[in-house]
Amino acid sequence: MDAYEIRQEIRNGRHKNTTSGLANDNVQANLVVLPKAYAFDFLLYALRNPTPIPIIEVLEDGKCNSRFAKDSDIRTDIPFYNIYKNGTLVDTVEDVKDIWQDDFVSFLIGCSFTFEDALMKGDISLKHIEQNKNVAMYKTNIPTERAGIFHGNMVVSMRPIKKNLVDKAIEITSQFKDMHGGPVHVGDPRAIGIEDITKPDYGDSIDIADDEVPVFWGCGVTPQNAILQAKPSIMISHKPGHMFITDINNEAFKEE
Amino acid sequence: MDAYEIRQEIRNGRHKNTTSGLANDNVQANLVVLPKAYAFDFLLYALRNPTPIPIIEVLEDGKCNSRFAKDSDIRTDIPFYNIYKNGTLVDTVEDVKDIWQDDFVSFLIGCSFTFEDALMKGDISLKHIEQNKNVAMYKTNIPTERAGIFHGNMVVSMRPIKKNLVDKAIEITSQFKDMHGGPVHVGDPRAIGIEDITKPDYGDSIDIADDEVPVFWGCGVTPQNAILQAKPSIMISHKPGHMFITDINNEAFKEE
Repeated sequence: MDAYEIRQEIRNGRHKNTTSGLANDNVQANLVVLPKAYAFDFLLYALRNPTPIPIIEVLEDGKCNSRFAKDSDIRTDIPFYNIYKNGTLVDTVEDVKDIWQDDFVSFLIGCSFTFEDALMKGDISLKHIEQNKNVAMYKTNIPTERAGIFHGNMVVSMRPIKKNLVDKAIEITSQFKDMHGGPVHVGDPRAIGIEDITKPDYGDSIDIADDEVPVFWGCGVTPQNAILQAKPSIMISHKPGHMFITDINNEAFKEE
Repeated sequence: MDAYEIRQEIRNGRHKNTTSGLANDNVQANLVVLPKAYAFDFLLYALRNPTPIPIIEVLEDGKCNSRFAKDSDIRTDIPFYNIYKNGTLVDTVEDVKDIWQDDFVSFLIGCSFTFEDALMKGDISLKHIEQNKNVAMYKTNIPTERAGIFHGNMVVSMRPIKKNLVDKAIEITSQFKDMHGGPVHVGDPRAIGIEDITKPDYGDSIDIADDEVPVFWGCGVTPQNAILQAKPSIMISHKPGHMFITDINNEAFKEE
C-alpha cells in the first residue's frame, strides 16, 4: 500500500498499530496541535531546538489538510492521538474530529523513521522493525532551549547498532540534518540521564546484544515532554510511534 | 570603531545616517517589532519566505537585548525607526523607548550588507558604498507566500554589477544561503514589476552604466511592504538602510 492508501486505512480504523516500517520511502511526521494562543511560543521553541523538533509544515488555524499528503485530514489520519489538558495526558483516541477547535494550529515535525530507511539500505539492521515493535524512546537530562512557556528535557529514540557499524550509522543519519540529523549521544545511557534502558518512557523495549551499542537520536516526542511543564489548556499529539504518513519521499531530506 | 562602539554612537544620537559600509565584518539586521498577538503569523510568514525574510533572532516579549550584540538595546541602537499604525507609516523617530509595550516581540532579520563585504573582497565594487549612499530598494511583482494576515510582494535590493562579474557575484552571494542567498533576478527590471529603475521605493537611486547589469536580491524590507496590507495596530521597523549592527562575523553565515 502507498502512503495515500495507508492514510485511508488509518482513517477508517483498519490500522491501529505503530506506523514504523510502513511506506518506508515516505516521510512520517510527529504531530503537535495547540490553540493559536500558544502557537508563537511553540513555533519559536521548535526553531530554537531544531534537532528534536524539525518543523516540516505548519497548518494554520482553520486548516486540516497537509500540502504534503493528498486528501489528508490531520484529525483522522493518525492511528491514535494523545490528548493533554493542563499538562496531563487525559485520553488516547482514534480521531479528534469531535474536539477540534477553530483556533487549532497543527505542527508537523520530522521523525527519525525517515533515516531508518537509509540505515536499512546501508545494511544496518534495525531490531525494532525486525521484531515488529515500536522504537524505544526515553526522556533524558539534555535540556532544550526555552521559548515562552515551553521548556524541558529532550526525548530521544534509541536503536541498538552493531559496534562496527556505529560510524556508518552516524554518517548516514548526519545526512538528514533537517530530520533530527546525527545522534545526540552514543553509548552509556546514564550519561544522558537514562537510568534503566530496559524501561523506555515511550514505545517498546528493545534488547541490546553484547556486540551492540545503544545510539540515541533527538525525537519529535520532545514536545510531549515539554508540555508537562508548560501546561497549555489543551494539546493534541500523536501517540508516539503512531505517525502521520506524508507523500514526501525521504530522499527529499537527504543532503549529500 | 567596532560594532559595540557604533551602537553606542547610534544610541547617543551621534550617528544619524545609513549603516551601509559600517563595521564591514559584522552582520547587520533588519528589525520588525510587533505585538505578540501578531507574532505567530509573522514568524510563520518569515519561515515561508526565507529568501527575503531570514530570521536571525527573535526577542520574546519583555526582551530588548540581542544575544548577538553585547549590552545592546533594540529600542535605541538603530539610527531611525519607522512606526506604522494600521498599515500606514505615521512617524520616523530616533528611539522607541517612549512607545515600547510589554507585549512587543522583536524579530532580527538578515541583511544583504552581510554579503557586500564578501563581494568587495571578491573585487566586485559596490557603487552605493563608493558613493556613500544607501542601497536602492524596490517593490516588485514577485509574490510572497501568505501566512495569516501577512502577504504581499517581495522587496528587493539592487546593485549594478559589471557584466563580466555577474556570474562571480551570483556565486559569492549564493554562499550566504541563510542571508538572502543568490539573486532573485538579473537584468530587466520590468520583468519583476519595476517600472522606473531611477526611482527606488526605499534608499537612494544608483546609476547603472552601460557595462553594468542591475542585479536584484531579496530584501528584509519586505515585511514593511506586507504590513501595508496586513494593517497590524502597530509595527515598528528600522528605516531602510539604517540597520541594527550585531557582533556576529559575516563569515558565520557563509557556506562553502
